[in-house]
Amino acid sequence: MREIEQYLKEKAVIVEERLRSYVNNPEIPDRLRESMAYSLLAGGKRLRPILVLAVAEALGGSEEKALPFACAVEMIHTYSLIHDDLPSMDNDDFRRGIPTNHKVYGEAMAILAGDALLTKAFGVLAEGALNADLSRETALGLIRECAVRAGAEGMVGGQVKDLQGEGRSVTLEELQEIHRSKTGDLITLSVRLGSLVSGASEDKLQALTGYAERLGLAFQIQDDVLDVVGDREKLGKPIGSDEQKEKSTYPALMGLEDSKKWVRKLVDEAKSLVLSLEGVRPNRLLAIADYLTYRES
Amino acid sequence: MREIEQYLKEKAVIVEERLRSYVNNPEIPDRLRESMAYSLLAGGKRLRPILVLAVAEALGGSEEKALPFACAVEMIHTYSLIHDDLPSMDNDDFRRGIPTNHKVYGEAMAILAGDALLTKAFGVLAEGALNADLSRETALGLIRECAVRAGAEGMVGGQVKDLQGEGRSVTLEELQEIHRSKTGDLITLSVRLGSLVSGASEDKLQALTGYAERLGLAFQIQDDVLDVVGDREKLGKPIGSDEQKEKSTYPALMGLEDSKKWVRKLVDEAKSLVLSLEGVRPNRLLAIADYLTYRES
Repeated sequence: MREIEQYLKEKAVIVEERLRSYVNNPEIPDRLRESMAYSLLAGGKRLRPILVLAVAEALGGSEEKALPFACAVEMIHTYSLIHDDLPSMDNDDFRRGIPTNHKVYGEAMAILAGDALLTKAFGVLAEGALNADLSRETALGLIRECAVRAGAEGMVGGQVKDLQGEGRSVTLEELQEIHRSKTGDLITLSVRLGSLVSGASEDKLQALTGYAERLGLAFQIQDDVLDVVGDREKLGKPIGSDEQKEKSTYPALMGLEDSKKWVRKLVDEAKSLVLSLEGVRPNRLLAIADYLTYRES
Repeated sequence: MREIEQYLKEKAVIVEERLRSYVNNPEIPDRLRESMAYSLLAGGKRLRPILVLAVAEALGGSEEKALPFACAVEMIHTYSLIHDDLPSMDNDDFRRGIPTNHKVYGEAMAILAGDALLTKAFGVLAEGALNADLSRETALGLIRECAVRAGAEGMVGGQVKDLQGEGRSVTLEELQEIHRSKTGDLITLSVRLGSLVSGASEDKLQALTGYAERLGLAFQIQDDVLDVVGDREKLGKPIGSDEQKEKSTYPALMGLEDSKKWVRKLVDEAKSLVLSLEGVRPNRLLAIADYLTYRES
């Protein structure tokens, strides 16, 4: 586990440096820039951007060309956290162990910082596509896909379904559908961006998409498992907080042991898909999949 | 005035039809789709999208190709209104004579509907650029410009400056700067999108940008003038509402008569810029400029 942790740490530093440069812009009003930077540079696993970079690396692509795409996905992820934490949504006071954006900057600025990060993400995507010499079809297709997976049909739609599911019992199928859009779409997008910017063939893109979909679901189930067995320090949020909000979870719906088994099955499938590809360096992608499932250890 | 009103009405119908088709998507959760459609299809002048179409028409461009860009700008405008109306921002209960989005759908859904419309706008831009056969440089440059003008350096930054200006006196220079970004950037973007999608030469693009900048400022000053002299029906918001919030206005800073004079000067300059161009059909652009200044009559 040591080596992959080292890798994740190194890549997180690279991503964070580039993210910092994107918001460090004197044309942005001071307070807005501070609010954007506060959440964007608050650490976190940087799972999504690292997936973009790791997939590019596995395909022999350029890290420099992949980096804007990695940052764009992280900006979208961060905006969604800022908005999800708002009093009218999940009403969370802490995130990653520090006060949430609206607790520090107020609700108005938190909403606007989220809006600004989302908007900036598309600017970074367009600039990244220009510099990566992607064809117009690939570049514009990728921006369109990003809008679909992050938008009403994807992540935003998932948050709506999640809010609607609170306080009532949802079926296992509904729960999976919520997560497929709320968290899965952005993880899948990350892997697909890393693939597209590296010129992946259609069969590689398909297999890696399958890898991402399994990883995204495994990650979410594992998150629920950790919410039951984890401790406050490791996740940076109160234990059992999902239960308090009467959110349905995988352990609640199918039991803790079966949830764990499912995670292992999904990770095995994800790894097989990567191993089935020729001409791909699989090690990082396999290690990331393993790492995500052993987070509690 | 009759003919331009007819023109604006016709184009508004075309824009509204296309906007409806963009949100009428069964993959969007019902309640979210309703909330998006509620604000997007609530009427309004459709000034920005009509500018996109009118500029394309003036340059001999294709309306069909310009339409997605027109709709993208209107989606961005609508999302900004939904978020600006929220209790933590301007706290408005009515917009265009009907209850604001959060009064009907609640704050959480209003925030998410805004997020979804902003995200969708970029998807529509990318798709529009694909179908309009724009070169990769033009297409990606246009998406990047859209992100800058709508984002932290543009419209979102303008809203931050506007909120920060409430309750204290701002100078005329600061007020202009607030409006340049808060409303001007999106109007300029509209004209530039209409120009770029129609293959405008650099000198035409420059002149039309100048037209847009003057129009945007004139529009804002006129809005302040109407807030003083207008009546509730015409604007759909309470008279003198800016004054109640202690917002600085042009009439307050430079007097009503000088404000009106300035509007006329800006409109004259805007019209001269259009008339200076060869090979451009100027009539609609001139009529729109005149129409905006005579709204009160």
